[in-house]
Amino acid sequence: MPGITSYGGFFELGTPKKGENVFVSAASGAVGQLVGQFAKLHGCYVVGSKEKVDMLKNKFGFDEGFNYKEEPDLNAALKRYFPEGIDIYFENVGGKTLDTVLLNMRVHGRIPACGMISQYNLTQPEGVTNLAHIIYKRIRMEGFNSADFFHLYPKFLEFVLPHIKEEKIVYVEDIAEGLENGPAALVGLFSGRNVGKQVLVVACE
Amino acid sequence: MPGITSYGGFFELGTPKKGENVFVSAASGAVGQLVGQFAKLHGCYVVGSKEKVDMLKNKFGFDEGFNYKEEPDLNAALKRYFPEGIDIYFENVGGKTLDTVLLNMRVHGRIPACGMISQYNLTQPEGVTNLAHIIYKRIRMEGFNSADFFHLYPKFLEFVLPHIKEEKIVYVEDIAEGLENGPAALVGLFSGRNVGKQVLVVACE
Repeated sequence: MPGITSYGGFFELGTPKKGENVFVSAASGAVGQLVGQFAKLHGCYVVGSKEKVDMLKNKFGFDEGFNYKEEPDLNAALKRYFPEGIDIYFENVGGKTLDTVLLNMRVHGRIPACGMISQYNLTQPEGVTNLAHIIYKRIRMEGFNSADFFHLYPKFLEFVLPHIKEEKIVYVEDIAEGLENGPAALVGLFSGRNVGKQVLVVACE
Repeated sequence: MPGITSYGGFFELGTPKKGENVFVSAASGAVGQLVGQFAKLHGCYVVGSKEKVDMLKNKFGFDEGFNYKEEPDLNAALKRYFPEGIDIYFENVGGKTLDTVLLNMRVHGRIPACGMISQYNLTQPEGVTNLAHIIYKRIRMEGFNSADFFHLYPKFLEFVLPHIKEEKIVYVEDIAEGLENGPAALVGLFSGRNVGKQVLVVACE
């Protein structure tokens, strides 16, 4: 599921070109880690935001990574990593992150929107104030889910399987053990605690 | 200029299908009035928002129109005119209007974004809080300007000229006379006072 989500979102909606600048939020999450690797394989420059910066660079091969929780000024961080701006923002978190990214997008940038996990549990979602940049910069933003791309499954497998065999695509899962640890694992998704797909092992047989 | 803007935004980014539900803000403006007429010619159901409701229905042939300044609850108004939701929202104003429209979009809806005129002169733009609906409903929102569609000019003329000759497309301009009336005409654009393209006649020779 994260595979086809990442593949369809990045290639179909992101329409990446070699050399373009890609920013991925929730970058060590189940989808983000794959998007970053796909982008590198496609010849893009990729920066991810997530707690596990070492993993982004050393395990998944991102060009750069930063921990958004340690950046007092996200706008300054984005300008540091993207002095020429962002062509593709793969959106997983929404809210203030999106608001700041909009200031740093390039003309004709694309925002495949996979999730806005920072917003789902808020009584009052954060207001995004920089939407006029969608017009100034003629940005395309598009929401999707995996079902939109099921028809691409054969093409996806053809692309991904050789890369997995050659270990050019790797995959990390976050495995919690025991039903009693399920609720905490679920809550962890909303604070960015997970690395990769959050899996709960109920019983090993 | 409003012609190619309306044509490209509606047909290329809106990708309309016959029978779809179209909402146009600033609907008697230079662009909005044409979008509504194009949508009707394409077999869509079209509702516009603007002060001049009579003109929307009787001059431009919209199915319905309402004056947003007289609607205490925009959400209720949209639900009244679009009980099944909106497929295409042609965005001219932004802010609270966009926020409320997002609640009323249908799955796979499209938002060609031409302008956000309600926001340009605000020190602090209004926050849009319902963006997660872009994901829930897999909406595509795309900013553009006329230059993006200059290559379509021959196709546009081929479409529009016969309709103008047959009076199936009409056009209203808002003509202010005298340089001294320029500033007021310009300010009027931001409060929705104009009907059609705001033109200033400096001298008649």
